[in-house]
This record gives sequence, C-alpha cells and structure tokens, in this order.
Amino acid sequence: MTTKAYAAFNAVDPLGAHTIERRTLDAKDVSIKIEYCGVCHSDLHTAKSDWGPTNYPAVPGHEIIGRVEAVGSEVTKFKVGDIVGVGCMVESCQHCHSCDEGLEQYCENGFTGTYNSKNSKYGGITYGGYAEKIVVQESFVLNVPTNLPLENVAPLLCAGITTWSPLRHWNVKKGDKVGVVGLGGLGHMGVKFAKAMGVHVVMITTSVSKGEDAMKLGADEVLISTNADEMKAHAYSFDFLLNTIPVAHDVNPYLLLLKLDKTMCMVGAIEPFPIHGGVLINKRRNIAGSLIGGIKETQEMLDFCGEHGIVSEVEVINMHDINEAYVRMQKSDVKYRFVIDMKTL
Amino acid sequence: MTTKAYAAFNAVDPLGAHTIERRTLDAKDVSIKIEYCGVCHSDLHTAKSDWGPTNYPAVPGHEIIGRVEAVGSEVTKFKVGDIVGVGCMVESCQHCHSCDEGLEQYCENGFTGTYNSKNSKYGGITYGGYAEKIVVQESFVLNVPTNLPLENVAPLLCAGITTWSPLRHWNVKKGDKVGVVGLGGLGHMGVKFAKAMGVHVVMITTSVSKGEDAMKLGADEVLISTNADEMKAHAYSFDFLLNTIPVAHDVNPYLLLLKLDKTMCMVGAIEPFPIHGGVLINKRRNIAGSLIGGIKETQEMLDFCGEHGIVSEVEVINMHDINEAYVRMQKSDVKYRFVIDMKTL
Repeated sequence: MTTKAYAAFNAVDPLGAHTIERRTLDAKDVSIKIEYCGVCHSDLHTAKSDWGPTNYPAVPGHEIIGRVEAVGSEVTKFKVGDIVGVGCMVESCQHCHSCDEGLEQYCENGFTGTYNSKNSKYGGITYGGYAEKIVVQESFVLNVPTNLPLENVAPLLCAGITTWSPLRHWNVKKGDKVGVVGLGGLGHMGVKFAKAMGVHVVMITTSVSKGEDAMKLGADEVLISTNADEMKAHAYSFDFLLNTIPVAHDVNPYLLLLKLDKTMCMVGAIEPFPIHGGVLINKRRNIAGSLIGGIKETQEMLDFCGEHGIVSEVEVINMHDINEAYVRMQKSDVKYRFVIDMKTL
Repeated sequence: MTTKAYAAFNAVDPLGAHTIERRTLDAKDVSIKIEYCGVCHSDLHTAKSDWGPTNYPAVPGHEIIGRVEAVGSEVTKFKVGDIVGVGCMVESCQHCHSCDEGLEQYCENGFTGTYNSKNSKYGGITYGGYAEKIVVQESFVLNVPTNLPLENVAPLLCAGITTWSPLRHWNVKKGDKVGVVGLGGLGHMGVKFAKAMGVHVVMITTSVSKGEDAMKLGADEVLISTNADEMKAHAYSFDFLLNTIPVAHDVNPYLLLLKLDKTMCMVGAIEPFPIHGGVLINKRRNIAGSLIGGIKETQEMLDFCGEHGIVSEVEVINMHDINEAYVRMQKSDVKYRFVIDMKTL
C-alpha cells in the first residue's frame, strides 16, 4: 500500500508531499483514512529536530481522526466505516507493569510514538497523521463519540488526554479549587475538563485578554500572575495546579499558591527550571509531571466528552498552510489548536 | 528568673555568656534545666544571619534534652525530675487546620521557633537551648525514653524528626527500596529509621568512605552517585528517596532513580536548584519537601527510638568549643552531630 504523506523537514522550508510505503494489514490492524489531524507543538519540535536528530523524511501528527477503511482478520473492536482516533502512541510492550495497568505511556520498555519512532515490530520509522492513511493495531485505536464535530475532536487525542489524565490522577473533585496555568492548546482543555468535573476553576495567566477568554470557556475566576497582590491573596489556597506553560519559567510563584500537601503538575515545560527547596519544604508541597495518558483513560476521556459535549476550540487549516501555522503557533496566535483538513492533502 | 545563656553573634567572633531574663512560669509551663543541646546547621545559619537579619543577642539550639525542675499549676503531663525534650517549636496557634491535625510545623499562622522567633504571647524574641534553662508550655514538651543515653537523644528533636516524618508520611514499608541521599546529621538518622522500618536501604553518596560508614549504620547497599554506570543500573528502581543534602545541587540524576509515581523528598536544600521537567513528566515522578514534624509524631518517633534502641551518633563538646564545632560542621567533619554538654556552660 502506498500512501501520500506530508513530510516535515523544518518549519521554514517548503514541505513536500511524499509517497510512503505503509505496512500491509496484519490480523489485528486497522487501516484508517484520515479526515483531520491536529497540530501539536511536538510536531514542530520534531520537524526542527529540537529533541535530538529527527529521522527525515518525518511525517508529524498524533491527533488523528479518521474513518476505518479496512480491518485485519482478527479485529473485533472496529468495523469499516467507524469513526476512530489515534493519539501519540501506536505500540507498547503490553507485558510490563505499566502496560498491565493501562499506562502504556509509561511502558517500561518504551512505547512506540505515532511518528518519528523506531517501529520495533515492522522496522523503519513510524509516520504520523499528516497523511492520507495510517495503519495501527486495534489496541491503540480509540472509539470516537458520533455526536461531536470531528475537527474539534482531533486535539483531544493529545491536548485533551494530556490535561485529563493529571486531573483524574490527582483526583480533583467537586469543591476543590483548581488552577490552570497558561491558556493554549492544553490549557483551554484543562479549563473545560476541570469545569466539567465540578471544581472551582481559576485561570492563571499573565494576560488579561486570555483571562477574559478563559471565562468564556468556563473558568470561574482569573488570577493575573504578574500581579503580586493578587498572587498573595490567593497564596496557600489551591488544591491542585495544572501547569501547561510549554517552556521553562519561574514556577515558584505558582507553588506558593498551593495548600499543604498539594501538587502542581507540569505537562508542558521539559527544560530545566529552578525550584526553591524552601517553597516545597515550607508546606510539604509537591511538584510532579504527567505524560499524555493511557489508552483506557483516553477512551474514558473521549466518552466523557461525548456525554458532556466537550471539544477543543480549533482553527481548521489546509495542509499547505502548515508552515504558517507553525509560525503562528510559536506566537500563541491560535485559539486554540490548528487542525488540518486532510481532504486538502 | 535570670538564666545564663550562650548568645551567638557569628561563627567567628568569640561568643559570650549572657544573662537573659526568662519568663515566669505560667500555669501550663514547664521549666527545664538543660543537660544537652544538639548543634544543627540552622544554628549556624541563624548565628550568621544567613536567613535574614538575626535578632542579636541570639541563643541558638533546638535539640534540647533536660530535666524538669518546675511545673506550672495546670501542668498534667510532666512532673519535677522527668527527662524531657524540646525541638524546633515552642508555640503555634493551636486552632488552624494544620494544628488540629497535629502538624504544628505547618501552622497556618506560623509556629514560634525555639529561638530567634517573635514570642507572640510574651513579646520579645525566643532564646534556644545553648542555655542553662528554658521555659516551654507543656504541649511543646516531649517525653524522652529513659533507656537511651541522653546526649545521643538530643539530635532526635530536629535531625531525627526531620527524617522520620517524611519516611512515615510517604509510607515507606517492608519490601520498599529506599534511598537516603547524603550522610550527615540528617542522613545518618534516615538510614537508621529506614532500616528499622524494614525497607531495603541504599546509601546514595559521592564518597566511598561515607558509603562504608553507612553500611555500619545499617544500610543494605551503597550507590556512588558519581558513578554513571551504577546510577544507570539503579535507574527506575526506587520507591522513595530522602534527599538530605543541605545545599543546592543537581537533583535530576537522583530523580531518574525513582519508579513511576514515586517521590523524592527534600529536607535540606532550600536554595534554588534546577529541575528538568522532562524527568518528572517522563515517569510521573514527584519532588516534594518536608519540614521537621509535628509534636504528636515527634513523640511517636521518640517512643519508637526507645523501643528499638535508636539514637543519633554524636560527638559531645564543651560550650566554649562551639565556634570550632561550627567550622568543622561546615566541612562535614563530624560523625554525625555535635552535642553540647550544658554542664560546661
């Protein structure tokens, strides 16, 4: 099977459509005709080799929504015509403690990423969702609620699950005061999920206009983090903080907002940032990280979204606008996720 | 009541014995004739105004063991002649959520430190244990097991409880693999407590000789943190890390030792140190802090020490050797805590 895919070399050079050999359909495989693919910061990082040498040609994209066009002989969960999703993973060892717990994202033998990962089973490199089609084993394919607009569902596969998982893991519950730090692709999903979970949601941002936007998305309150008086007034009052800022920053002012024994979870910044030990020691505070989410909880999240009518806010683009989208994304000039309409490939 | 106390101005100048007016005995107060006082890094930091301007004359010392010499009319827990201890706190609000939970060290209105703290009830500044006597309300006085050598018990009131509390809070239990990072006043107590709790204790140190010492104290294994191969072999294998290093350092190599969802607790370093977000995100790891311990758990720790024959390793000094002790302490030249014999004041 040959399939047209969109190979990204970097964010500036014109990109070209390549024809890539896809693997043939195994017994447990699902072949998906892609309808929409969200554009994640990771795509750009990979295109630019920010995270180490990328294997070019690279086909980014791990917020994939499409329609099943063929299934292997042993596939039981899906049939031709189903609307399905694929997120950041397409394979894991399936026999370690993490996989047994449904936490494939923490697979002790390393999961296979949807793109730019070594394909341990078939050899070569995985290619992602900026493409016509993708073949994925059924255990990594998700059911998509039929009542939601598909272009708005795509970002749930990465931005959605990345914020859902920590909110669930740290058990935020009705009556809690939860802060979402940063309003972008991740942050706006954090606000929507936290609100739907019944907590008091505080948008924590440097930007007054982002604060206003967050209120429209369901936030109960806005805290402008550059206002020292406001920050002081909220000190020691939060039950959980979801920090979605995608770059290194001073986390200590946020940590001071936490109550005794509470946690700030980082889902964006991977570079080194300084922590004051005293801020942790002072109130037995925690700082943690969280990586996307397992397949089981991704399905739970999608089902929850179907029940509650939750989707991502998106701007649909044509495939050939991807470089401009990358540039705008870096400037946070998107509300809140670009999604590629794959008909335009 | 006037009492001779040892006022520390800094670590270099000769110090002098001052006569300080102690408060009269209130109904719930206990007056204690001090027999031994441990020497904590905090004493030196305070003597040197490292943590902001110290109120001179300052009398450090919050690892206090002594004998009750008088009690107020309403004191019920102690009688004249009892051997008692006083740790880092002498007062807290007693009505906030933290105090209600027995966590006076996290008092929402701020606890009163044993020295160099504003004395909210009586005015003035509190004076610590480098003194003949101290008057403390009974709710902040601890029972001391009578079967232990008193000079070796003194450091339990700070170094002991500071390591005990996180081991208990993070619920280390038989079968766990627990690392103690750094072997000093705190670290050596961490090793002893963790061993007594039935866990597999790994001493993590840069020093081969400290590793050997830790084995004598009960560690099951030594991990030399500067040996990259050893560190790699232990990656992703620890259930808990107690980090006792008292200064800023690169914590990331230690974080990589933690299993999924596990925690490294900082009890020493209060300055800023860099954390790689990716190391947290990668395995949903946590880094936290912990401050001394509450009165209830301090009593539990002392009782546990009595039952298990656990004490601190100490070097007993005369009062007038304090400056030399400070200098040696800064060079880690003590196994593992200096304790002042107050008969020498």
